[in-house]
Amino acid sequence: MNCGVLVFPNVEELDFVGPWEFLGVWKKFARGPENCFLVAPSLTPVSCAKGMIVQPHISFEQCPVLDFLVVPGGEGTRKEIENKTLIDFIAARAAECKAVLSVCTGSFLLHRAGLLSGKRATTHWSSLDKLRALGDVIVVEERFVRDGNIWSSAGVSAGIDAMLAVIDDFAGEQAAGIVQFATEYYPLVKIYGNFDKNPQAPAYVKKAS
Amino acid sequence: MNCGVLVFPNVEELDFVGPWEFLGVWKKFARGPENCFLVAPSLTPVSCAKGMIVQPHISFEQCPVLDFLVVPGGEGTRKEIENKTLIDFIAARAAECKAVLSVCTGSFLLHRAGLLSGKRATTHWSSLDKLRALGDVIVVEERFVRDGNIWSSAGVSAGIDAMLAVIDDFAGEQAAGIVQFATEYYPLVKIYGNFDKNPQAPAYVKKAS
Repeated sequence: MNCGVLVFPNVEELDFVGPWEFLGVWKKFARGPENCFLVAPSLTPVSCAKGMIVQPHISFEQCPVLDFLVVPGGEGTRKEIENKTLIDFIAARAAECKAVLSVCTGSFLLHRAGLLSGKRATTHWSSLDKLRALGDVIVVEERFVRDGNIWSSAGVSAGIDAMLAVIDDFAGEQAAGIVQFATEYYPLVKIYGNFDKNPQAPAYVKKAS
Repeated sequence: MNCGVLVFPNVEELDFVGPWEFLGVWKKFARGPENCFLVAPSLTPVSCAKGMIVQPHISFEQCPVLDFLVVPGGEGTRKEIENKTLIDFIAARAAECKAVLSVCTGSFLLHRAGLLSGKRATTHWSSLDKLRALGDVIVVEERFVRDGNIWSSAGVSAGIDAMLAVIDDFAGEQAAGIVQFATEYYPLVKIYGNFDKNPQAPAYVKKAS
């Protein structure tokens, strides 16, 4: 099995490294995908939104058939949505995938690739209205949502929860548990300030508070 | 203010990118440190434990005085603990820092740098006994712990919770809230499998289950 994690200029770091870490642990400890790649249009190093610089492992041209594709978000999506090569790559590869997972504003790239029309999907809370305005997406305010083989998660850190759910769905609860235990993903749920009561907070956050 | 995040071969990806993301969001949205660097002995690209390759921003020699230092863990720590240049860097810079935060087995690097003797500290659950065996550390099984300006967190994902607590401590709850909201860090607490009841699970996980 092959897993591709897309990167592009101004991609948000945690959007892709959260799922990347969980994929890597799945591979190492619970018989996950044999190959995990950071994939980009070319092998040029990629400058992320918060300044981290990563080296893609493979270019679109070199990329084998993918079983899983992670499409992160970040400021860079505003530009990449006009990048036909990147959008075409997502559209073509999604057709072969067992699961495609967008994180944060990565959902706008999935939409442009024609993958969200008539589907339930989500994004970062600050972009929910923009996703609704596209008109053909059933926008939900959950931490993540699945519709067929298309998964989408809320902002930045939510990709971690979604990735774990994808592993559970594909490989079972024991595999997801091994990954959760190895990464010690038993978060403290401490709310700082009162942003969970902000009018813009997504429904799943308001519901929990 | 300057913030350094240490990287070295076989560093665990999420150990450093979790805090990195939160530092970057703190900088961008809540008046955090002006400068955040990935710092390494040299500018040679670093291959991480799960295969990601990152480009350090500055070498030890180029590194300015630091206000915050993040010391991640991962398999690479087993080798780096013998790297005198790296250990000396941690020891020297920690003396200037408002806060030093180790994630996962990064605590062993802090210990070798002389920063944990007689102090309360923690690490990844699978290394708690090894940390105890050092003899001079008061090992606690919390998600993270602070002792003076030294903070240490449990495995991999715990660095995120600890970083947020450092921001709260240093810049106040409103700043931590802004970072939590922007990164949408309101995790789902779903337990997969029954690893939370594993004899090796740390006390804070057992207590919650």
